[in-house]
Formats: sequence, C-alpha cells, structure tokens
Amino acid sequence: MTVNVTGAEALLRTLAAHGVDTCFMNPGTSEMQFVSALDRVPEVRGVLCLDESVAAGAADGYARIAGRPAATLLHLGPGLANALSNLHNARKARSGVVNIVGEHASWHLAHDAPLTADIEAIARPFSDSVSTARTAAEVAPRAADAIAAARAGRIATLIVPADASWDQCELTIPPLAAPVPPDAAGAQAETAAATLERLGPRAGLLLSGEALSEASLEGAARIHAATGARVFANRYSGRLPRGRGVFPAQRLAYFPEPAEAMLAGLELLYTVETGAPVTFFGYPGRASSVAPPDCRIEPMPLAALLALAARYPASEIAAGQGGEPLTPAEGPLNPETLGAVLAGMLPEGAIVSDEMVSSGEAVNARLARAARHDLLPVTGGSIGQGLPVALGAALAAPSRPVIALQADGSAMYTLSALWSYARENAQVITVIFANRRYRILDVEIERTRAGAPGPLGGRMLDLASPALDFVHLANGCGVPASRASTAGEFAVQFQAALRQRGPSLIEAVLPSR
Amino acid sequence: MTVNVTGAEALLRTLAAHGVDTCFMNPGTSEMQFVSALDRVPEVRGVLCLDESVAAGAADGYARIAGRPAATLLHLGPGLANALSNLHNARKARSGVVNIVGEHASWHLAHDAPLTADIEAIARPFSDSVSTARTAAEVAPRAADAIAAARAGRIATLIVPADASWDQCELTIPPLAAPVPPDAAGAQAETAAATLERLGPRAGLLLSGEALSEASLEGAARIHAATGARVFANRYSGRLPRGRGVFPAQRLAYFPEPAEAMLAGLELLYTVETGAPVTFFGYPGRASSVAPPDCRIEPMPLAALLALAARYPASEIAAGQGGEPLTPAEGPLNPETLGAVLAGMLPEGAIVSDEMVSSGEAVNARLARAARHDLLPVTGGSIGQGLPVALGAALAAPSRPVIALQADGSAMYTLSALWSYARENAQVITVIFANRRYRILDVEIERTRAGAPGPLGGRMLDLASPALDFVHLANGCGVPASRASTAGEFAVQFQAALRQRGPSLIEAVLPSR
Repeated sequence: MTVNVTGAEALLRTLAAHGVDTCFMNPGTSEMQFVSALDRVPEVRGVLCLDESVAAGAADGYARIAGRPAATLLHLGPGLANALSNLHNARKARSGVVNIVGEHASWHLAHDAPLTADIEAIARPFSDSVSTARTAAEVAPRAADAIAAARAGRIATLIVPADASWDQCELTIPPLAAPVPPDAAGAQAETAAATLERLGPRAGLLLSGEALSEASLEGAARIHAATGARVFANRYSGRLPRGRGVFPAQRLAYFPEPAEAMLAGLELLYTVETGAPVTFFGYPGRASSVAPPDCRIEPMPLAALLALAARYPASEIAAGQGGEPLTPAEGPLNPETLGAVLAGMLPEGAIVSDEMVSSGEAVNARLARAARHDLLPVTGGSIGQGLPVALGAALAAPSRPVIALQADGSAMYTLSALWSYARENAQVITVIFANRRYRILDVEIERTRAGAPGPLGGRMLDLASPALDFVHLANGCGVPASRASTAGEFAVQFQAALRQRGPSLIEAVLPSR
Repeated sequence: MTVNVTGAEALLRTLAAHGVDTCFMNPGTSEMQFVSALDRVPEVRGVLCLDESVAAGAADGYARIAGRPAATLLHLGPGLANALSNLHNARKARSGVVNIVGEHASWHLAHDAPLTADIEAIARPFSDSVSTARTAAEVAPRAADAIAAARAGRIATLIVPADASWDQCELTIPPLAAPVPPDAAGAQAETAAATLERLGPRAGLLLSGEALSEASLEGAARIHAATGARVFANRYSGRLPRGRGVFPAQRLAYFPEPAEAMLAGLELLYTVETGAPVTFFGYPGRASSVAPPDCRIEPMPLAALLALAARYPASEIAAGQGGEPLTPAEGPLNPETLGAVLAGMLPEGAIVSDEMVSSGEAVNARLARAARHDLLPVTGGSIGQGLPVALGAALAAPSRPVIALQADGSAMYTLSALWSYARENAQVITVIFANRRYRILDVEIERTRAGAPGPLGGRMLDLASPALDFVHLANGCGVPASRASTAGEFAVQFQAALRQRGPSLIEAVLPSR
C-alpha cells in the first residue's frame, strides 16, 4: 500500500513495520516533524531522555535484553556528540542501534548557522554505517538499510535534514535485506572436536556476544564435560546469563596478573565472537596480551561452536555449580557484605546492570551464587553506561526487576536517567556504591608507575569534598531514595525496594579506602 | 635551563611557563602521570569536573573572561566525545582551549582494547588543530604549538599517549610562535568613513568577538554619533559588555522576523569578526539570511574599525542609554518580573552566563538597564553550556559575582557543574528558570509547520511529570538552594545569595505556558 506522508512519518512507519517500536530521544527544532508524527504512528513509543548520552545508553540496554534494536532521535551534531560515548559502549556490546540524527534544512547548511557541524564526520568514528537521506523519498529506503544493519548488531547512523522530514513523499514500506546466513560449520566442528579431546584442559574456549546466550552456554557445558576444555567469558560482552542453574563460564579478570593466571597452561584458545584476550589498559613493562605467549589463538564461528556442542550429550554441569544461596550478611557495609546480601535476595530472572567499577570483583564473585539472572557488564569502558542501560533493559522487559549496581563517580555522567525511570515508571532499583572516590584510580596510578599522588593530585581522585548526596539527587529526579550504612540496613531497604512498584534508589555508604 | 622530567610534567611546565594556569579535568588511567605531576608543578591548578562536558564548557567560560586560554585534560576517545558539544560552543565563541586528551600506550593500540577509538578522527570536527605527541620529547614542542593556537582563539587538541606521558625527556621550555600582526587598515578606514558619512542610518556595523570589547564598543559609539550608522551585535558572540555606561549595540533577535525588522532599510552592512547575519534554524518558505536582499555585506577587519573610530571624537552616547535602574517588581513570578528584579539588583561588574532559552528575550531586555556587566551568551547552540561557562568565568575572575541564568531543561545536561562550584567555593548564583517544559519547542514546532503535537508528541516537550526539584538536586551537589514562586520571594532570596560567600541556587518557578 502506498500512502502520502511526510519524510518523518515515513521513517516512523518504516521503523514500526520492522519491529523497531521504541525510540529514545531528545529532539530539537530540526526533529519537530518526528515529534508531531508520534501521534500518527503510535506503534513507536517515544521515550524522552534529558540528554543524548542517556538515550544512546538506553538503546544499548534495550538491545541487550530484547535481542532487537531500538532507535534514538538526536538533535544535530552536538546532540549526536553527546551520545557518542554510550554509542561506543553499544558498539562494543554489539548492540544494534538505529541512530537517527536530525540536520538543518539542506539549503540552510551553507550559511554556517551556530549549530552547523559536519554530522557525518562526527558519526563515523562510532558508527558501522552512516548515511544521509537527501530527500523525503530517500528516508524510508535508507531507514530500511539502517534497520537491517542494526538487527545485525551494528550502529547504523541515519541523518535526516529538516526538509527531508517535512517534505511529503509516497511511502511503500521497503523490505529489509535478508541477513547473511552462517557458513556451514560441520567440518570445522569435527576438527575442533578431535583437537579438544586430545588437549583436554590445555585447550580453552573464550566466548562473547551471542556465544554467551543460554543456549550457547549449555553447549559449552557439554563440550567442557566431554573434553575437559576450559570455558571462559569475555568480561566485556554485552550480556552474561549467570547464577544458579547456568553453566559458569569463567569471566576473565580485569587486571592482567589474575587474567594471566586464569589462562595459564593453555596451548590452544578458540575465540568465538571475540578477538584475542587483552588487558584493558597498557602498563609499563607488561604485555597487552594475557594468553600464554606460546598459546595458539584460533577464531571459531558461532555455528561451529553449536555444531561441536551437538556432538556431545547434555551434561550435569549445565545444571549449575552455584552452591547454596547466601544468607544476608550482618555487620559493616562493604562490597563483600553488600554482594552477599544481593546474592541472597536477588529475584529469579533479575537483570543486573553493572557499573560498579572498583566494587565489581567482590560483588560479582558473590552474585555467581545468586538466583539465575542476566548480568549486563561494562563493554566499552566509557563511563556513564550503567544507569541508561538499566533504563533500556527495564523497557525491554517490563515484567523483570532491573538492578542498577552503580559506582558513585560514574553515576554523575548520566544521572538524569533517574528522571526517565520515574517518568516511565520503570522497575529499576539503583544501588549507588558511595565510596566517595574514583577508587579504581588509586590502583591504576600505582600500576602506571606514576606513584601515589600528593595533596594536589589526590584531589583529582576525591569525591568527598563535598560528598555527593544521592538521596537528594534521586528525589530531585522524582525517585524515592534511602541511605544504608550497615549491611542490615541495606538488606531491609533492598527488600522494601523489591516490593515497591516503580523505581527506587539506595545510597550504600562504603569505606573510601 | 634543561631538566629531566616525564612527558606529562614537561606538558604541565610548558603550560605554566606560557600562562596557562588552570586545567579543567576528568582524568583516567591513561592520564595518571598528569595527576601525579600536579604536585611538582603547582603553578597549574587542576579543577576536577564530574564529566568532560563541564570541563570543556568551563574552559570556554574561563577564556571569555580571562582573555587567555585554559586547558582541559580528558580521558581517551570517549572522554573527548563527552566534551565535544561544549567544545563546539567554545569554538563558536572563539574561546581558545588547549584540549589535552590522553591515549593508550602506543603499543597497546593494536590490540583493540575496549576503550580504543580513533581519537584524531573524533577531535577533528570540533578542533582547529589536532596533533599527537608520539614521544615524551615531542610533548613540549607540540604543547607550545597548541598554546599559541589557543591564544589566537582556536581549539587546539593535543593527544598524548600514556607512554609519552610516563617516559622521561629533557625539557627546555619551547618559545611560542609570534602572533600574526594585523594588516594596516588606514586606507580602508578612510574609504569606510566616506561611505558611512554619506549613507547615515542606511549603513550598519555588525560586531562580534573582539569587536565587542569595551574599547571597540566605545569606538562604535563614536562612529554612530558622527555618521548615524547603526550598530548591531551578533547575538552569538562570546562576551557582550552591557548595562549602564556601555554603548548599547543592538543584539540581533533570535527569530527571523524581528531580526529582519532590525536590519530593514540597510543598504550596506560592515561585518567585523563575523559573517553575514543568518537565522538560527532554517524554516519552510523563509530565507536563511536576515539582511535586506539588496543590502551589500562587506567584511571589515577589527583594525579598520578601530582606525575608523579614531577619526571621530568621543561621544556622549558612550556614556550609555540604560535609563534609570528598575525597582524590584511585585506580584507573580514570570520572565518579565524576574528580569526586572535582576536588573534592579545586579551588582556592578557582575558576569551573567545566559542559557535562559525561551525566557531570554524578556530578561535581557530588562538587563540592558542594569548596572554595567558582562553577558556571556549562547554561542554554538549546543545545550548545556550555561552552568559550566559560569564555573570557568568564576575561576577566571574570583572577585566578581557570577550569575548563571539557566533554563531547567538545559540545566540537566551539565548539572554536576554545581558540585564543582561547591568544591571550588565559586561565587556563582544559579537561577533556574523552571517552566517545566522545553518551552522554546512549542514555538519551533509551529514554525517548522509540524503543527501542534498531540498527547504522545507533547510528552516529548514536557518536563512536568515528574517535576524536577532543583532544590534537592543542588543540595545533592553540595550547593545551598531555595525556591521562589513570587517576584517578592525571588528578590529576597537573590539579595541573600548576593551576600553569601560561595555558590547558591534559586529555583524560580515560572508559568509553563
């Protein structure tokens, strides 16, 4: 069916027709046609975010949980610029995003008005594809290309000048290009099976992306049980099913020494949906690679992993090694006791957005024994991911509780996500790890051989003067909040939050050293 | 004198030697050497900002008031990305910035670690120059180039890999390249004088940048008095001296119709430090240029303007046309009464950071009659400028009161600037214009012929559900705050804020329509 619509409406209708039903946005003048078209295409839900970094992070979280892309709608070059750091994280998570950016009317660009910028050049370093719809008629076909790319896990930026939005066009919804089928993988699986059976624990699988779905993990459990091969998870993958009943792939450690210890003794490492394992930062006198120097690293397609797993029977191990649930800890509040409380109380099917930074190791070690849940880790390392990702996850799965475990320093990058929680009545419990310091940098400054900082340098790591008050900050955004200073207080407040409809926040006051 | 230092220390010493004494920063692992060097080079003051958008905006505000550049220190590609929107504003303000970005150690880049990104490509669309110091020895010479460029009002991005920071080098402070001298302008001034004397009010001068300094404005007053030429100010220039005793150049209006009315009848417009006057956005069926179609537009160098002014005697008009000060208004709080209160109470020498958006016209019309002050307008139109610019201005001029006049919607982009106010005990009074709506977009949506939005679209302009509570938000950042609902309450609270040491915030509750 062909209808006459504005370019903006053509875009929304194309999104809706291909299942992109959520658009995280902060529109301006050049995007007003999209705003007015929302009432004509109610299949696309507009979610207002108070800055574009929240919009991009929310689209990331949405894709990680829904398994299909959301859209963003951003205002000109500077609006896109604000979104880039969380687009970086989304890209490293392989979360597809239909990233829509409004542009000045085409004939206005030559006049160098204040907001004029080179949007394509701004988009390119953080996008897998960039295109501009020059006319209203071009909008729908280019949108279909962007949707197909986003469905394949790519950041697809589509720039729409204001005149292409407000001009009329004839719309017939364009079909999507068919996805590329995976290669046949039987032969590779057969070779790999022989190798793994020969090497046993001297071989390993490093999984990421789709290879960490529950189905793949169940397959990895079979392979592990049958061959003795060790199974590792890329710690920066977008989603990791964890907890009781899930095969516990070993997450590679953040720092190089423990990561190297985990991989010690490997002669062969198959990498599935990821590259070779490397350190997060480079440090003086230390190699970037964390695999043993003589370990052979071979990429394996996901289809080969699944074909390999199908050769072996279902395994006991797949039923999980989490052990008994922890009972809530008593006594002082620190990452260890907080992690124990969380592990004991986390509801089955919860989604955990993790931007705990320095508190992460202690808490995650305990969450491994919690009820089955999805962990959404840091992926690209760009600060300010945790709260927006939780927003997107909550809208993708409204019936599941979302827990945002959030360091205090990084929370300040995208604090206004809390307002969107309140606006959308999102079921997100935010736990702020308030150690009032960029604590991780106390470790990093030593590792880079910069030495302990003096009083002037030390102030650049300090968040205690003045102390941020997250109860006030949350209330300012319309989110009820409380403060916990002991493990018992935290347990009581977390239980109350689980019972509550809508968002809440707990500031967990932790030791600063 | 030659000394042996790390690359990071070489950079800080080069900044200090050339008068760049303030560095707005949010450092990470790759910048730890700079942090530890702060105690060895205390001449450079590190100012911690909780995100990089605040750091870039503060550097902008600093340059607008100090007349010399500050530095930033940003963490890798994503840290730079967060700074871009306010670098855009700084660039349009012609505020020089020494924009320092840390990078992974050079040998780590090949490994595609999570934070890896193409930093030069990210920087280019918002920088006038981009360079990377490949070794420690390269750091100081490249820093000197960046400082020279920033002193000339440019955004000079300098990328420093971690190994160039931590390696040792021999440092001799490099001299700066000499600035380009202005062209002789006597002949052009003579021609222009004859033309202006002939055309009278059918000729105009459009001033921006340095041409809006107090000395230039005094010169413009002479030209106006002697020739009758009309004098206009680019409304997007970085700094505009205003108030009683300052020649009142007419600021061009935001919307095209009133801007066109201001310029009507002109046959010739000299543009000094700016291009031709254009609309902010393009609208259907309306030209981008706001000068009369047959008006000749001629660029005039600043030196020619000053030579022209020197031909005429000092003028009465230079003593100002502000009229009597306004007395504080009674009754309901709205942009008009709020502007009247401000105009009556603004202290001599105040600095006003203006991101009022829809409330700006009403308030600025009244501030024209206030005591002499510096207005720091929106320059590039990228939202989130106001609070950071006020931070930089306050640190550049600690003895002057700074008033941040800030719309509620845009305040949420860089709210954490409030924390830096508290940390630095900055003398900033923030006034939040809380109309709880992206009010300007109600106008813009009509102008773009998108029509009034329905309920779904309307939600994208609404900030009332839930209402942001800026008293809580400010308290959360360590800033004392109050709320005013009448003009009288506002006057009392503003007077108290003027008497207080350190920052404060007033949420001024305004009608939403």
